[in-house]
Amino acid sequence: MGVMSTVSSGQHTRPMCYLLLLMILQLGLHTAEGVWPLPQTLISSTERFHLSPQAFYFGYGRQSAAQQGCSVLDAAFMRYFALIFPDYTSGRWNLFSDKNEKDGTLPFSVDKQFTVEVSVDHNDCDGYPNESSSERYNLSVFSGRASLKAVTVWGALRGLETFSQLVYQDDFGSYFVNKTDIEDFPRFQFRGILLDTSRHYLPVQAILKTLDAMAYSKFNVFHWHIVDDPSFPYQSRTFPDLSSKGAFHPMTHIYTQSDVRRVISHARMRGIRVLPEFDSPGHTKSWGKGQPDLLTPCYKGGIPSGTFGPINPALPSTYHFMATLFKEVSVVFPDSYIHLGGDEVDFSCWKSNPYVRAFMQKMGFGSDFTKLEAFYMENIVNITSALNKTSIVWQDVFDYHERRSSLSVVEVWREGCYLCEVRRVAKAGLRVILASPWYLDLAGPTHNWARYYTVWPLAFKGTEEQKKLVIGGEVCMWGEYVDATNLTPRLWPRASAAAERLWSDEKQTSNVDMAFPRLQDFRCKLVRRGIQAEPLYVGHCKQEYQGI
Amino acid sequence: MGVMSTVSSGQHTRPMCYLLLLMILQLGLHTAEGVWPLPQTLISSTERFHLSPQAFYFGYGRQSAAQQGCSVLDAAFMRYFALIFPDYTSGRWNLFSDKNEKDGTLPFSVDKQFTVEVSVDHNDCDGYPNESSSERYNLSVFSGRASLKAVTVWGALRGLETFSQLVYQDDFGSYFVNKTDIEDFPRFQFRGILLDTSRHYLPVQAILKTLDAMAYSKFNVFHWHIVDDPSFPYQSRTFPDLSSKGAFHPMTHIYTQSDVRRVISHARMRGIRVLPEFDSPGHTKSWGKGQPDLLTPCYKGGIPSGTFGPINPALPSTYHFMATLFKEVSVVFPDSYIHLGGDEVDFSCWKSNPYVRAFMQKMGFGSDFTKLEAFYMENIVNITSALNKTSIVWQDVFDYHERRSSLSVVEVWREGCYLCEVRRVAKAGLRVILASPWYLDLAGPTHNWARYYTVWPLAFKGTEEQKKLVIGGEVCMWGEYVDATNLTPRLWPRASAAAERLWSDEKQTSNVDMAFPRLQDFRCKLVRRGIQAEPLYVGHCKQEYQGI
Repeated sequence: MGVMSTVSSGQHTRPMCYLLLLMILQLGLHTAEGVWPLPQTLISSTERFHLSPQAFYFGYGRQSAAQQGCSVLDAAFMRYFALIFPDYTSGRWNLFSDKNEKDGTLPFSVDKQFTVEVSVDHNDCDGYPNESSSERYNLSVFSGRASLKAVTVWGALRGLETFSQLVYQDDFGSYFVNKTDIEDFPRFQFRGILLDTSRHYLPVQAILKTLDAMAYSKFNVFHWHIVDDPSFPYQSRTFPDLSSKGAFHPMTHIYTQSDVRRVISHARMRGIRVLPEFDSPGHTKSWGKGQPDLLTPCYKGGIPSGTFGPINPALPSTYHFMATLFKEVSVVFPDSYIHLGGDEVDFSCWKSNPYVRAFMQKMGFGSDFTKLEAFYMENIVNITSALNKTSIVWQDVFDYHERRSSLSVVEVWREGCYLCEVRRVAKAGLRVILASPWYLDLAGPTHNWARYYTVWPLAFKGTEEQKKLVIGGEVCMWGEYVDATNLTPRLWPRASAAAERLWSDEKQTSNVDMAFPRLQDFRCKLVRRGIQAEPLYVGHCKQEYQGI
Repeated sequence: MGVMSTVSSGQHTRPMCYLLLLMILQLGLHTAEGVWPLPQTLISSTERFHLSPQAFYFGYGRQSAAQQGCSVLDAAFMRYFALIFPDYTSGRWNLFSDKNEKDGTLPFSVDKQFTVEVSVDHNDCDGYPNESSSERYNLSVFSGRASLKAVTVWGALRGLETFSQLVYQDDFGSYFVNKTDIEDFPRFQFRGILLDTSRHYLPVQAILKTLDAMAYSKFNVFHWHIVDDPSFPYQSRTFPDLSSKGAFHPMTHIYTQSDVRRVISHARMRGIRVLPEFDSPGHTKSWGKGQPDLLTPCYKGGIPSGTFGPINPALPSTYHFMATLFKEVSVVFPDSYIHLGGDEVDFSCWKSNPYVRAFMQKMGFGSDFTKLEAFYMENIVNITSALNKTSIVWQDVFDYHERRSSLSVVEVWREGCYLCEVRRVAKAGLRVILASPWYLDLAGPTHNWARYYTVWPLAFKGTEEQKKLVIGGEVCMWGEYVDATNLTPRLWPRASAAAERLWSDEKQTSNVDMAFPRLQDFRCKLVRRGIQAEPLYVGHCKQEYQGI
């Protein structure tokens, strides 16, 4: 595991080896580096160093802008110590090496000391990762020492994850890491996973566990599709009735402000942004329970039928409500992006309502309801812009919109020629997130991971400038058939296939057969870390899942 | 939950109510009885009795052949107490009521006492359930008392499961059970689940958990497909090399004799038979690692190619080995059935081998390799018959066999017109188990549960006698893509759909729309009991799965 055994070692042949390995990597013949997603450049040798948990330390480099006390890295050192030494259960270890003793003998151990020295250029320990955060890092593993350098603490987190995956155990349980040099950075800035907490409520623990697993695959955006038709679990400070009347249960099936803070904090510590989605004007049935006069009353035979449609775009009170709600949301969720939804609006209820029709006439929309939808969305976009937030919308909004220049980021989700749509959005000069090929909520045999792997997000005709507008992709886990009972095996390791597509160099990772054993290895690592990731095919892991 | 709220209650109208309810049941209008699979006859009223864990007892009827000390029922009382009162965590309760105090006041409680009195005709406490065990039971719930009568302890277990499903909690957490009369028995004698522990190793805990869940759906056969091509995890006393060389790992990925006993004992306590399968002559690659000269050497260009095919049917040593192995297996597994496999034999290796071809000539088989396979299987059937075991074979053996009279039970598994095959087997006078429509290892959206529900095993042209030969059905969970990480959500609640088909009256349970809310309820019960059963559709359970 994690060892390249085909190349002979030895001090004097090393430069040669490196060249050979570099060639092998470029030919795509890397089979078991043990790092998933594959780093941009990885040079390793068979020279290996023994690691002992009793003599293993994390430390900050002298020149590092962040030093001990940096919340993000201090906590990451704790986590990764346990991930690197899963068999080592004793609590008696020191996180940091005592620099004065560095070259002396350690009192309780005869093992050779090994220190991972982390240096970052910016002290962003107390901030949040954002769209322009660098995740680049360099990692060099030598005898007795690993040097991890990054621009930001978020990049350092990616490097720690990589280091943890480089460590392996031999058959006797001893830990080793090979001499390695890595230069790494993500191909795409936006690498997200959507969880839907409206169709089924996901306990906070299930979300936190997903964030853990996301960090293992270097995902960096948790897209929280928090409310929708079936339930409204977000407990709003301003409009508490939304959840007390719109959640599945007003006490047990909600996310309190404290729950939300916990999720955001857990995500931050892993370099993950939390992108909230409050989808409107469709997908809002549950909103109507706690907010009277928000939804459009549908009419039948000239009288209200008692049912309700999308949010009512014809009432000024609607925009007042939405502005107040988004004001709260923009404070609760620190990320600069907000997802506004805008997908699948059914016009039939609007059509049935005489007041909505009268509004259409007044506005000069004729009978073109896409104009009404565009009018609504433009108002919502303006509301969020005024709050200094960048808005994301589903592709429907782009498709119907006339004044596309007011839009910022469009998420492509429909089936069919999704790259045609990506191209159209990029041509219009807007940023694109691609979700269509990664609807993992649709169950299927695990071996369809290859379908999620062989996606080429930039394989459309366009200029370099246009391709740069594709800022990333997203795995969607919709909730019709998914809750905490099956979320994890349905998500992992198939989402990891998408993760490599979004992080790694496409040329080095285009071959499914070569990815297969690496993904099998990685899946066993996930299982070892307590993630219920399902198997790819017949076989076994050294440690099987025990958390029955 | 569990209450019929449409019928008014009241002392004097009760006989009327009963009639009405009976009619409703017969019309199939039962929507939320709360018992899955549906009992053959269920009459309930809205009259409900409060249950208090502090004043709830199990007891043996005066006339019961089994009394306190009956291992199966004593242990079941313990289990069902916890299942009936999941919120009651105090350990201070008495399992049995003190009969002398029955009409007096209890020292620690002002709650009214409730006793479930169990009576069985046969004291089969120390035996094993078998193919002819009655599972019939009658259950009557009155004020202060439930009377559960059964022929065997296995039937009493089914009745306890039913009783536990009748109990429900109101919004304040109080426990209730309604006045109810149930007469119940299974439609089919054989209701199995197959687990495959060769393609992936399943930790013993995962098997035990599956047995727990099986009991909740009244399954009564665990078909243990214990070995196959990829691995041989069964640790044989006689041939320890089979697992030490053929398992994925000789120490961590095996079932020791003690593991097997634990599984059999856990199953027995739940009225579940353990049916071992040692599939041959195909599906035996892993056997060859620990048993030289057992598999057929394949030839290429006149010389052995180094690869091996099915078990070698041309060597006397083969039959000696198989007789010795089955002698052990027949002692280790107490059930009177043994599954001999016999499916998917690839003839190409046999064809390539000159010694096998010579044997064919000697035996007068010409070039018909089905005759060779039939010869092999007949020998194996005779070996197990001599051990007083009834053999089950996959349908392939029936299809190729000429002397079908030596066969006993045939399991139909192929796709296509499976009822055509059922009919052919029944026409030949052999017993049939149907598996084709219940290959649940194939992932799919949970809502395809309806596909597993709308199976009509007896919908073939045949005499009453022939239909009686269909002894049951089986859910197959093959292991290519399944291990302990995804076994439970893939199995439940879809297997429960098959369970109702195999237990309940077909006329009362033919409608998917009426089954849906009942299965949703039942799925929430499974989740409450710690079974990671996946959701059927959008919605929620009062208690969501928390065992992240």
